[in-house]
Amino acid sequence: MVRLKFFIELKYEIVGQPTDFIFNVHAAQTACQSLVSENLWISQPVTCALFTDPGLGNRYIRLRAEPGELSLRYDATVDIQHHLAAPDRVREIPIAELPTETLAYIYPSRYCQSDRLSQLANAEFGALPPGYWRVRAIADWVHRRTKFASGSSNAMTWAVDTVIDHVGVCRDFAHLMIALCRALNIPARFATSIDYGSDPAFGPTDFHAIVEVFMGDRWYLFDPSGMALPMGLIRIGTGRDAADVSFATIFGNVRSFQPVIGVEGIEDSANGIILPHACVDASSTDSGVSGR
Amino acid sequence: MVRLKFFIELKYEIVGQPTDFIFNVHAAQTACQSLVSENLWISQPVTCALFTDPGLGNRYIRLRAEPGELSLRYDATVDIQHHLAAPDRVREIPIAELPTETLAYIYPSRYCQSDRLSQLANAEFGALPPGYWRVRAIADWVHRRTKFASGSSNAMTWAVDTVIDHVGVCRDFAHLMIALCRALNIPARFATSIDYGSDPAFGPTDFHAIVEVFMGDRWYLFDPSGMALPMGLIRIGTGRDAADVSFATIFGNVRSFQPVIGVEGIEDSANGIILPHACVDASSTDSGVSGR
Amino acid sequence: MVRLKFFIELKYEIVGQPTDFIFNVHAAQTACQSLVSENLWISQPVTCALFTDPGLGNRYIRLRAEPGELSLRYDATVDIQHHLAAPDRVREIPIAELPTETLAYIYPSRYCQSDRLSQLANAEFGALPPGYWRVRAIADWVHRRTKFASGSSNAMTWAVDTVIDHVGVCRDFAHLMIALCRALNIPARFATSIDYGSDPAFGPTDFHAIVEVFMGDRWYLFDPSGMALPMGLIRIGTGRDAADVSFATIFGNVRSFQPVIGVEGIEDSANGIILPHACVDASSTDSGVSGR
Amino acid sequence: MVRLKFFIELKYEIVGQPTDFIFNVHAAQTACQSLVSENLWISQPVTCALFTDPGLGNRYIRLRAEPGELSLRYDATVDIQHHLAAPDRVREIPIAELPTETLAYIYPSRYCQSDRLSQLANAEFGALPPGYWRVRAIADWVHRRTKFASGSSNAMTWAVDTVIDHVGVCRDFAHLMIALCRALNIPARFATSIDYGSDPAFGPTDFHAIVEVFMGDRWYLFDPSGMALPMGLIRIGTGRDAADVSFATIFGNVRSFQPVIGVEGIEDSANGIILPHACVDASSTDSGVSGR
Repeated sequence: MVRLKFFIELKYEIVGQPTDFIFNVHAAQTACQSLVSENLWISQPVTCALFTDPGLGNRYIRLRAEPGELSLRYDATVDIQHHLAAPDRVREIPIAELPTETLAYIYPSRYCQSDRLSQLANAEFGALPPGYWRVRAIADWVHRRTKFASGSSNAMTWAVDTVIDHVGVCRDFAHLMIALCRALNIPARFATSIDYGSDPAFGPTDFHAIVEVFMGDRWYLFDPSGMALPMGLIRIGTGRDAADVSFATIFGNVRSFQPVIGVEGIEDSANGIILPHACVDASSTDSGVSGR
Repeated sequence: MVRLKFFIELKYEIVGQPTDFIFNVHAAQTACQSLVSENLWISQPVTCALFTDPGLGNRYIRLRAEPGELSLRYDATVDIQHHLAAPDRVREIPIAELPTETLAYIYPSRYCQSDRLSQLANAEFGALPPGYWRVRAIADWVHRRTKFASGSSNAMTWAVDTVIDHVGVCRDFAHLMIALCRALNIPARFATSIDYGSDPAFGPTDFHAIVEVFMGDRWYLFDPSGMALPMGLIRIGTGRDAADVSFATIFGNVRSFQPVIGVEGIEDSANGIILPHACVDASSTDSGVSGR
Repeated sequence: MVRLKFFIELKYEIVGQPTDFIFNVHAAQTACQSLVSENLWISQPVTCALFTDPGLGNRYIRLRAEPGELSLRYDATVDIQHHLAAPDRVREIPIAELPTETLAYIYPSRYCQSDRLSQLANAEFGALPPGYWRVRAIADWVHRRTKFASGSSNAMTWAVDTVIDHVGVCRDFAHLMIALCRALNIPARFATSIDYGSDPAFGPTDFHAIVEVFMGDRWYLFDPSGMALPMGLIRIGTGRDAADVSFATIFGNVRSFQPVIGVEGIEDSANGIILPHACVDASSTDSGVSGR
Repeated sequence: MVRLKFFIELKYEIVGQPTDFIFNVHAAQTACQSLVSENLWISQPVTCALFTDPGLGNRYIRLRAEPGELSLRYDATVDIQHHLAAPDRVREIPIAELPTETLAYIYPSRYCQSDRLSQLANAEFGALPPGYWRVRAIADWVHRRTKFASGSSNAMTWAVDTVIDHVGVCRDFAHLMIALCRALNIPARFATSIDYGSDPAFGPTDFHAIVEVFMGDRWYLFDPSGMALPMGLIRIGTGRDAADVSFATIFGNVRSFQPVIGVEGIEDSANGIILPHACVDASSTDSGVSGR
C-alpha cells in the first residue's frame, strides 16, 4: 500500500459581480483509494455544497463567491492499494461482454473524436493482438510522436490537432490515446490526478492528466506522456475527457493565478506502507463499480 | 393524456463474421411516459441482453448476430402524460441552484462544442431576459437560419458546421440549439424520438432528434427543426448528443437498409385520451429524476 | 495628392546557422503610388536581391543572414494620387466582363475559404443590389460583429474562425471580408500597408491589413477593421491573403523583435499636397494593370 | 517524343437563367508540350473568349450560356517531349537560389495548408538527404498510407483531412503531397491532366490530378496516386491547388453530367514517336519559364 499526502492551493481575483465556481479537487474515493484525512479551507465565508458523482466517485464543490479575492486550500492524506496484474493476463473485453457502465466510454466526446481517427487507429494498431500490450503500444506511439511543450495547446485543442501537430501537454497526450482506444472499441476515459514522483524536468508539481482503460474487470492506468509513476498517482476526477473534470469550472469574469500543489510520500514499512516505485505490472485503482 | 402506438423495423445484411449491435429503440420509461404494451421480435435466434440506464431511463439491447440477414421489429403502445406549464412561469435556473445531475449537460460534447460558440451565443442571446422565451428565441433562430435538406450533413457534422453552412437535418438543428444553450450555461441534451403528426412534406415517419432543456424543475421539449408537434413525441433515448443515443451502434461490416417506422394516435375521449395537438404551453415529459 | 514619409525597423536574433529571409517591406509602385525617395539599410554585409512581381508591383528582398543580430531599416517618401469615385457610380462587374487578371481573386485561398461561406454570404448579402454599397455593407457587417483584440488569433486562424469567434486582429477582419466577397463572385484581395492617421487607441503604428475589391475598372480600398483612413494608407504588398504578403518570411530558427514603425504626413499646399482626411468617396490606388 | 490524341465531352443542363462558365480544358502549351491540332465545339451559339495565363500557359475559355442544354467537345493532338533526368542528379534548390516565379508555391493555399503540416513533414522527411529521392519518398508515403476510393472526399476536403482519414481521390493525394513538400520549403504545385495508360482498374479515363515539384531548373512530375504513367500525361492546367484549375467553374444553378474522355497514343517509330512507357528517370514537361 502507498500513502500520499498532498495539498492544492488555488487563488482567484473576482471582478465585478458574484461568480459561481465548481471545483473538482477532492481526492476521489474508490475501491482502491481511501481517505486518511482531509481539510478544506476557503477564504470567503460562503456556503459550499459538496456532492459526489455516484457512478464515478468524483467529488465536487459548488459555491458562489463575492467580488474580491477567493482562495481555496485543500489537503488530504490518502491510502492507495493498487491492483496489480501481470500484463499478459490483462485481456481486452469484446463488445458483447463489456459491462454496461463502460459503454459510454467507447463513444466520441468533445476532445476525443474517435470516429474521426478510426482509419488511423486501425492502420496503426488494428493488426496487433488484442490485450494489454496493444494498449501499451498505443500509449507508446502517442508518447513517441508527440513532443511535450507547455503552452503548445489550448482549450480548443482536440485529438486530431495532436495527431497533426505532434506537440501538446499532458491532457493532449491523454485525449489522443483515449480517442485511439475508443476507435478500436476499447473503453477509455480521462482522469485528473496529482502525481508523486514525476520527473522534475517537467516543472513544479501540477495537476496531471492520465488515461484509464477498461480491460479484464477494471480500469487500468496509463500515462502516455510518460511523466508519472503510475503508483504515484492520486485520483481526483474521471470522465469522458477534460470537459468533464476541469479542476475549476468558472462561470464569470475572473483572474486566475497559477495553482500551487505539493505532494509527498509517506513510508511506514512496519505497516506495509511503501513509497511508489516503477513496476512493470498493469496497475489499476478503480474496479469501475462504485464502492468496490 | 396521449396514447401512441408505433413500430420500428430495422434490417441489416451482415457480411463475413459475427457482428455486435447495440440498439436503442425501446420506448423510454420516464415519470411521464409509461408502457401499455410492447413486443420485440428478432430474426436470428440470438441471446439479447436488455439493460436500462438508471439515470436516464434509456433502454438498450445488445446482441451478437451471425452473418446473413438480421431483422428486428419492435412495437409498443405508450401513454404520455405531458407536464404543461405557462411559458412565462418557466424560469432558467442559476448555476448555483442547478441539480447535480444536470451539470454534465452544460459541458461541451462531440457534436455540441459550446465552448466554441460562446461569443456567438452571447452576442445573439446574451442580452435577452433569462427564461423560457430566451430558449424559445434560440430554437427560433436555429430554425430560421438553417435550411432542412436530407443528406446535407454526415456523421462528422457538428454545431459549428451548421452555423457556417446554414443547412442540416434534424440532428444538426438539435446539436446547434444544444450548443447555444450550453454556451449560456443552460443545461441542454439530445433526445431521439418517434414523432406522431409531423408534416408529411418531410417524408415518411423516421427517427426524429429533438432537444430537452432544463428549466424550472424539469426538462422541457423543443424541436428547433419545427417539424414535430411536441405533444406527438415518443421518447426513445436521451444523452449528451447523437453520439450517445444512436438507434443502432454497429461494430462491424454491415449493409444497412432504410428503417421502416409507423406511428398512430389512439383516441379514447371517454377515458381522457386525446390526440396530440399544437399548444403554446411549455411541454415536458421528464422530471430529470428517474422514476418520478 | 498625399505625400507620406515612413520608416520600418525590423530586428532578429539568428540562432545556430545561416537563415534565409524574404522581406516585403518596400513601398509598392503602382499607377497611383510613386516614390519620392527611399533608403534601405541592413546590419549584415549580405548580398540582397530585390525583385518586383510584374503583375502586382510587390517588391521583395531576399537574403541569407549569418547567425547573430540582423537589423533592417527601410524608409521612404511616397506620393499617392488617389482615384476617387462617387460610390453610386462604382458598379460590380459580372463574371463575363471581369478582366482575366482578376479571376484568381474569386477563388478560395488558405485563409479565405469562400467556398465554405457561400451560404452565409448569400443569406446576408445575396438580396442587396450589386455595387459599391453592397461591398460596403459587407465591410460594415464584419466590422460590427467582430471585436478587435490583440493576440486573439494566430497564424492558423482563417475566415471561418472569425465568423464563429467574433474576434480578431486586422488581418482577420480582412480575411473574412475577402472570403465573403469571393463567395459572391466579387474579386477581392489582401493588402498590407502602413497607415497614417489611425486611431492611437489601437496602439503604436504597425503594419495594417486591408482589403482591395475589384469594381468598375480598378481595385477599391476597404478597411473592415475601421481603424484607418483610406487616404492614409501606403501600399506595401498585395496578394490572395496573408500567406502571400507576409512582411517577413523566415526559413529558420529566429527570435523576432517587435517591429518599430513611424509615419508622418507632409503638407505642401502650394504644390497641392494635402494631408489624408476622411472622405465618403470610394478610393483606389491601383488600376489592376501594372504601370498604369 | 510522345504523340497523344484525346477528346473531352462535357454536358450541362442550365436551369432558369443565363449562366457563366470558365472552362480549363485546352491542352497547355509549354516548352515541352506543343499542339499538332485542336478543335473546339460548343452546342450553343455563344461568344467564347479564350485567354492564356502568360506565366503558366493555362488556357481558359469563358462564356455565358443560355438556359437549356450546353455541350462542349474539345479534341486535340499534342506532341510531348519529356525532359528526362537521372534521379541522382536532380537536386533540391535552397531558398536563396529559387527562381522568383517559384516562391508562390512554397506558401500554403486553400487545400494545401502546409503551415499546419510542418511538424509532420519534418518528423517524417526532415532527416532524409535533400533531392529527388526525398521527394519520391514523400510521394511514396502518401501513396502507401492513403487508400484510393471514389466519392470518399468532397470539395471541402483538404490535406489535413487526408492525413487523418487515410483515404481520397487523386486530387487529395496531390494536395497532401504538395502540402508536405511546401512544409519543407520545396515549391510544389497542382496540375490537371488527361492520362494515357492508366490502370483500367481505376475506371474510365477521367481528368487526373498530379503534382509538379520544382527541382534543379524545372518542374518534375509526380503522381502520388500511382495510377498514371508520367510519360502518358497531357498537361491541362497548373496552379496552387485544385481551387485554381477546376476544369469547369460554374457561376449558377446547373445540372452536370459525367464527363466523357478518351485518349490514345500514336506510334510512328519512323519519326521517333513512341508510346508512353514506364521509366525510372525523373520526368518534366515544364521548365517553369513560359515559352521555353
